[in-house]
Amino acid sequence: PLPSSAPVRAPFVSFQERAKLATNPTANKLFQLMASKKTNLAVAVDLTVKQEILDLAEKIGSEICVLKTHVDIVQDYDQQFIKDLQAIAAKHNFLIFEDRKFADIGNTVKYQFENGVYEISKWADMVTIHGVAGPAIIDGFRESIKTTGAGLLLLAQMSSKGSMCVGEYTNQMVEMGKSNQDAVMGFICQERLSAMSDNFVLMTPGVQFNSAGDSMGQQYNTPEYVIKEKNTDVIIVGRGIYKSSNPKEEAIKYRTASWSAYESKQ
Amino acid sequence: PLPSSAPVRAPFVSFQERAKLATNPTANKLFQLMASKKTNLAVAVDLTVKQEILDLAEKIGSEICVLKTHVDIVQDYDQQFIKDLQAIAAKHNFLIFEDRKFADIGNTVKYQFENGVYEISKWADMVTIHGVAGPAIIDGFRESIKTTGAGLLLLAQMSSKGSMCVGEYTNQMVEMGKSNQDAVMGFICQERLSAMSDNFVLMTPGVQFNSAGDSMGQQYNTPEYVIKEKNTDVIIVGRGIYKSSNPKEEAIKYRTASWSAYESKQ
Repeated sequence: PLPSSAPVRAPFVSFQERAKLATNPTANKLFQLMASKKTNLAVAVDLTVKQEILDLAEKIGSEICVLKTHVDIVQDYDQQFIKDLQAIAAKHNFLIFEDRKFADIGNTVKYQFENGVYEISKWADMVTIHGVAGPAIIDGFRESIKTTGAGLLLLAQMSSKGSMCVGEYTNQMVEMGKSNQDAVMGFICQERLSAMSDNFVLMTPGVQFNSAGDSMGQQYNTPEYVIKEKNTDVIIVGRGIYKSSNPKEEAIKYRTASWSAYESKQ
Repeated sequence: PLPSSAPVRAPFVSFQERAKLATNPTANKLFQLMASKKTNLAVAVDLTVKQEILDLAEKIGSEICVLKTHVDIVQDYDQQFIKDLQAIAAKHNFLIFEDRKFADIGNTVKYQFENGVYEISKWADMVTIHGVAGPAIIDGFRESIKTTGAGLLLLAQMSSKGSMCVGEYTNQMVEMGKSNQDAVMGFICQERLSAMSDNFVLMTPGVQFNSAGDSMGQQYNTPEYVIKEKNTDVIIVGRGIYKSSNPKEEAIKYRTASWSAYESKQ
């Protein structure tokens, strides 16, 4: 393995300090938000009815730093939904993360990001991209995010079984991020690698207290394991919260666990 | 390089014969359609206004086997657009290919395929998927395509500069396709590799007579080179046709060139 693929227990640098090191405006904003609100919990809301998403956002908004959406699974999507979600985000102080996993060539993703029914560039604070088509994908976003300051999150590792996002692929993604750190705010990853510098936000999906997987290859880790052992910054919890009968209570549990894990690294 | 990564000049097998070998219903349908209509031209229509797409489809429909869309860039998308496009497809006998490049875990792509504003599963004859999240992505489609017979096209190689879809990644994609050949109808690739068996349709994007690239990393090949030298089945032409002032005339040129190249392999 190349040096960049080695997991590291880097010297602790607080979110306050990392806000100053951030090279992308949304990375700066998110580090500041986490430090002041004392939460490094992101919630993935994979619901298909807009009112259910808004209700959940209202319930858990006070506990989270980021709400992750897949707008393309929302059956009754309209522009009012985005306005309502933005109002809840402003009220509770969290960022909106559209997990689109853009994965085409630069010319196509430009249209997918800016145009169409969703006009994602107009409202998402951050979006995910796969670097599988090569680094020029980032050029498809550059013009738009120069205006808005939005951040790109590069998929460097995935938690699903048999993922190709491993080894040399991961190393290439880290290098792609470092070569474009004005646009790339951080990585979606399972662990902090030595080449991932402090300016990047590291977000880890597939987190659940109950760590059994699903029937479609998803595998889970606990908050403590991810933040403390794997040394990333933000946990992304999905079904553990949005499928719970008491999402607020669960969100508080996850928030407490992941924030304690962060503080214990000092 | 592993054996499967070696390009091959396989013995010629006609589209008629390959229809019989096809393991996915849409692969069967497309091989038959190409043989009877005598065209192996697919056109990528990256326009953002529905009427412009419909007008183009009407103009070039008689020349093509497949029309490739990105519905998520269409500004005024609605269900009537799909109905109108399907009527044109039925009239001119071509298939509809939504180039969504699904790239998430199985549980998420299931919702992205079946739900949301687009309900892609209800109308697309075929869709692209990236295997980057691992083979379980295919499970997200299985239930739906069992009913409709739609086909998945696995991204095995990409034409853009610095793509990660090369080498061992490509080999893994071919293996993933072969292990799921009920669902996977073929590959998006730049060349036929020895492991790509005759049941799969091989489609190659990035084709243009004028082979200069764009400013965002796209690189082009000619129809003859792709079909004859690289031994794939279908050319996908985008800007060379939809940006032309006379798309019908250009479509005829591309159709003639790619069909002649196919026939010359007999």
